Amino acid sequence: MIALKVKTQYRSEFVDITGDVAKAVRKIGISDGIVLIYCPHTTAGITINENADPSVLTDINLKTSKFIDHNDPDYRHGEGNSDSHIKSSFFGASETVIIERGKLVLGTWQGIFFAEFDGPRNREIFLKIIPG
Amino acid sequence: MIALKVKTQYRSEFVDITGDVAKAVRKIGISDGIVLIYCPHTTAGITINENADPSVLTDINLKTSKFIDHNDPDYRHGEGNSDSHIKSSFFGASETVIIERGKLVLGTWQGIFFAEFDGPRNREIFLKIIPG
Amino acid sequence: MIALKVKTQYRSEFVDITGDVAKAVRKIGISDGIVLIYCPHTTAGITINENADPSVLTDINLKTSKFIDHNDPDYRHGEGNSDSHIKSSFFGASETVIIERGKLVLGTWQGIFFAEFDGPRNREIFLKIIPG
Repeated sequence: MIALKVKTQYRSEFVDITGDVAKAVRKIGISDGIVLIYCPHTTAGITINENADPSVLTDINLKTSKFIDHNDPDYRHGEGNSDSHIKSSFFGASETVIIERGKLVLGTWQGIFFAEFDGPRNREIFLKIIPG
Repeated sequence: MIALKVKTQYRSEFVDITGDVAKAVRKIGISDGIVLIYCPHTTAGITINENADPSVLTDINLKTSKFIDHNDPDYRHGEGNSDSHIKSSFFGASETVIIERGKLVLGTWQGIFFAEFDGPRNREIFLKIIPG
Repeated sequence: MIALKVKTQYRSEFVDITGDVAKAVRKIGISDGIVLIYCPHTTAGITINENADPSVLTDINLKTSKFIDHNDPDYRHGEGNSDSHIKSSFFGASETVIIERGKLVLGTWQGIFFAEFDGPRNREIFLKIIPG
């Protein structure tokens, strides 16, 4: 297992970690298999989406925060981050990506993102490579 | 493949299965790899979230049921559980967790949950361990 | 890695790819393991849900389009498909299914679907089989 560090700057933010994951895979030197990109936090997640126009990520954040809003008076959890926990489950704790000839197999417009929903914080990501 | 049984008690409920998954992994005796936790039902799912304050799970359930409500008059499916199917796709059919030295690698506050959306029912969970 | 082709006919559509995935797994001739079903597009995804009554898929599409609507005036991305990107992250880029004795292990009512959110288009799906 490999642990990567991510420092987030805003409450809600998508941090492009594609380069870090690709580098870690290259370093391990495996040719073919899969890599699990895992988030060990319950107010964040991992997602794959467009890495070209940043307004896509802005829109994902904006829209999600409309139906999973920060301040619903019905929330019972006392830390004020129920929305972050809900988003964490919806975006998901991990993504799995194919490795071929030592490289990540991603679509043309795909990037891998650490999805922060309760930052700014110092966060970790776990990578696990399975050859095959 | 290992099959576990889960008995749910409410229509919508998050059942902590972390201990059962950890026990099954220990029993197999594998040191390193990944475990796929898979839900074979279409009105339930698997999710990872906070296992400390139960109000987090209450809030996830409450909020999700606001924008994916039970009784939308536009639903066409005749069984009255369209909301359960929609939630199933959003929470997802599986999660994958890293195994290291025979133990699940989870974040401090993370638990693995069977997410019931159309209970109470007798349910199954499939586990598949891949060494690596 | 195996690449499958999918041709979608509508803007939003769930295409049942269970048979194609099962056939590819049979062709590889692997007995036990897992198969990753991966979508390399950022306005589509992979989901597992009911394959019996098609009104379930209609309801998933209808409901999701209510809270992730096509024409929110706050969207900033200029291509008019922000809703498609958001749905892509929510349904997820992949699913993983267990293989036992050469066959996919699915629940009674489960099918694997390519989830199109910005069609009609010619799309690809990547499969990666990990024995174990």
